[in-house]
Amino acid sequence: MSEQSPLDLAEGDPFGPHNLPYGVFSTPDAPDHRRVGVRIGDHVLDAGAAAHALGSPYAALLARPTLNPLLAAGRTAWRDVRRALTAWVTVPAHRPDIEPLLHPLDTVALHLPYEVSDYVDFYASEHHATNVGRIFRPDGDALTPNWKHLPIGYHGRSGTIVVSGTEVVRPHGQRKAPSDPAPVFGPSVKLDIEAEVGFVVGTPSPLGEPVDLASFEDHVFGLFLLNDWSARDIQAWEYVPLGPFLGKSFATSVSAWVTPLEALTDARVAPPARDFPLLPYLDDADAEVPGGFDIRISVALNGQVVAEPPFAGMYWTAAQQLAHMTVNGASLRTGDVYGSGTVSGPERDQRGSFLELTWNGTEPIELPTGKRTFLEDGDVVTMTAWAPGPDGVRVGLGEVTGRIVGS
Amino acid sequence: MSEQSPLDLAEGDPFGPHNLPYGVFSTPDAPDHRRVGVRIGDHVLDAGAAAHALGSPYAALLARPTLNPLLAAGRTAWRDVRRALTAWVTVPAHRPDIEPLLHPLDTVALHLPYEVSDYVDFYASEHHATNVGRIFRPDGDALTPNWKHLPIGYHGRSGTIVVSGTEVVRPHGQRKAPSDPAPVFGPSVKLDIEAEVGFVVGTPSPLGEPVDLASFEDHVFGLFLLNDWSARDIQAWEYVPLGPFLGKSFATSVSAWVTPLEALTDARVAPPARDFPLLPYLDDADAEVPGGFDIRISVALNGQVVAEPPFAGMYWTAAQQLAHMTVNGASLRTGDVYGSGTVSGPERDQRGSFLELTWNGTEPIELPTGKRTFLEDGDVVTMTAWAPGPDGVRVGLGEVTGRIVGS
Repeated sequence: MSEQSPLDLAEGDPFGPHNLPYGVFSTPDAPDHRRVGVRIGDHVLDAGAAAHALGSPYAALLARPTLNPLLAAGRTAWRDVRRALTAWVTVPAHRPDIEPLLHPLDTVALHLPYEVSDYVDFYASEHHATNVGRIFRPDGDALTPNWKHLPIGYHGRSGTIVVSGTEVVRPHGQRKAPSDPAPVFGPSVKLDIEAEVGFVVGTPSPLGEPVDLASFEDHVFGLFLLNDWSARDIQAWEYVPLGPFLGKSFATSVSAWVTPLEALTDARVAPPARDFPLLPYLDDADAEVPGGFDIRISVALNGQVVAEPPFAGMYWTAAQQLAHMTVNGASLRTGDVYGSGTVSGPERDQRGSFLELTWNGTEPIELPTGKRTFLEDGDVVTMTAWAPGPDGVRVGLGEVTGRIVGS
Repeated sequence: MSEQSPLDLAEGDPFGPHNLPYGVFSTPDAPDHRRVGVRIGDHVLDAGAAAHALGSPYAALLARPTLNPLLAAGRTAWRDVRRALTAWVTVPAHRPDIEPLLHPLDTVALHLPYEVSDYVDFYASEHHATNVGRIFRPDGDALTPNWKHLPIGYHGRSGTIVVSGTEVVRPHGQRKAPSDPAPVFGPSVKLDIEAEVGFVVGTPSPLGEPVDLASFEDHVFGLFLLNDWSARDIQAWEYVPLGPFLGKSFATSVSAWVTPLEALTDARVAPPARDFPLLPYLDDADAEVPGGFDIRISVALNGQVVAEPPFAGMYWTAAQQLAHMTVNGASLRTGDVYGSGTVSGPERDQRGSFLELTWNGTEPIELPTGKRTFLEDGDVVTMTAWAPGPDGVRVGLGEVTGRIVGS
């Protein structure tokens, strides 16, 4: 061919055939026709159309407007579909069928890829929890006594999970500084991010039956970047005794792309050494597959990198979080999403929130445009990430971005 | 007619034509054919079939397997459907069409009447919050400083909301008494109830737009009894700093019957006097309709009444809770459910949890079968309730019941 094919990727492209994340897209000529897309390089493959053209039994599953039917189909289907997709984008004989079904990424609209059932957010970085404890409870121990015995988590609002690119309206709410005689109402003055990795459940589980550590990959389909926007002033005033509520529930942004766990086999790493013996349902010392993921996150404010949080150092793993979440018999549903909790490393420039980066606004960070504490209207926060893939190639995670608008 | 009609109810029947709660039912000959039913006396009217027989434009909406399409149809549709139903069960000329569509209540299966979107649980009884504060934080103030300024709430697990009658498996989990050197794992030894009133949202709201106090009845369709089962030992160990999680997420039981707000006009009462001025978005002093509901709850353990919590005394109203939940711009979806929080009155026999009734197990209650603290395997807890209706007739709320089984 005289023209280069979109399938001829540069060597080491982080969205090569070793990656193949899933999303849901539509094209401008048919904005309501949402269907499953698979990212390859800078293009989106219409997966259902490809499956149809090539006679795959999964064509119907991939022509749906959300990933949920694929998620519900279970691990064997996930493996089969991935194997087929890999062949379609790599076997030269398929090119005449596949190439017409590739859409340049910048010509499509990307949608929330799954219908979210329940949303749980964890708190799994020791560095983050220690920083937050010092800031919010300066007179007490930084970590609560339970922190190293169980993965602390809470339910969030699933109805306000939005896809990357959705504008985030600055929330109004109550806040009260210790010196204020009464709470005041207004737009949050401490609007923040939380850089996290999210996980989406495919295979459900019955009520009353815990899901053990070893079953993690039977239930969880994939992962993605997640920004758990947080209004620190609202949160600080409301969160005792029942936890964060309105300080979080206004918006949580997720990437448009879900990276299947199968693409991340080379990224598995052992979690940090544990400081206390774990109860058997959480004890992963003998796990066949290490529980951690070596994901390198980068957080940029208006194009300037402000933090590079390392996911490999998280104290609690996603498998432990799943085992904990269900140990009381709570059931899983297809589309359940859970966040890792803010990813922060030991260094200042590895902190995954402005709360920590600026120590609750008392130590502004320096940017080319001036000193900054929390987010201002018009700010754009973009998270990107990669993980080690096969043969030294990187596996790119789809970005999550959002712009703050005044209210 | 020689035989009495199921529509000839005894005078003052709490499920007479002034009530007409909605549910979803199926009959033994077609267990998968779920459709909307309306309770009248001890019978269930097949509402979709009735609408079809009588040429109502709402026939399709009522033939669905959940209430969600009716909930989403909005307040005008709710009023029209209720008006039609009232005519169908009261106008003698309709009897030949309606009577064949009535099923005795004890011959049908009742299902979860709505698909739950998000679930939020509040904490709106001053007596309950004070009791819990004294028990869990004996060294601090019983009420946190924010309690009288905003309705404290948190998100719960929507996927484990179950219909009345569903068995509740005793959850396993971590607990740690202050004297324990390390947490222990096992079945909860402090399994409890929380007697609450739940509300279900019909009309959704857009992201970024708060729903004000006056719009409560445009968005909320109806209410029902709710039992927020709680494992107090698991909860006590896990809940600091991010709130209750596994101590609650194993099961929440709701009544099979949703009472429309329209049936409760005579039950509206003013909430208690407020001890602090409220911010404008919560200030209901000039509300056209009083925010409270005079609902008298009765809690029975194995058939023996153990508490009679009065809902009229709740400090925060359902309208305030809705306004608070959305003031940060969080959107509402059809099927969002929120609980009032445990209903407790000032008297010991008005407390809506065994935690309070037995003061965390230290003051057992006396039953004919012996002393009791928390729930034992085989226990059945049943909540019933009524509210004042027109002309002194009671409006019955559908019961919520559940039996504890060992795990």
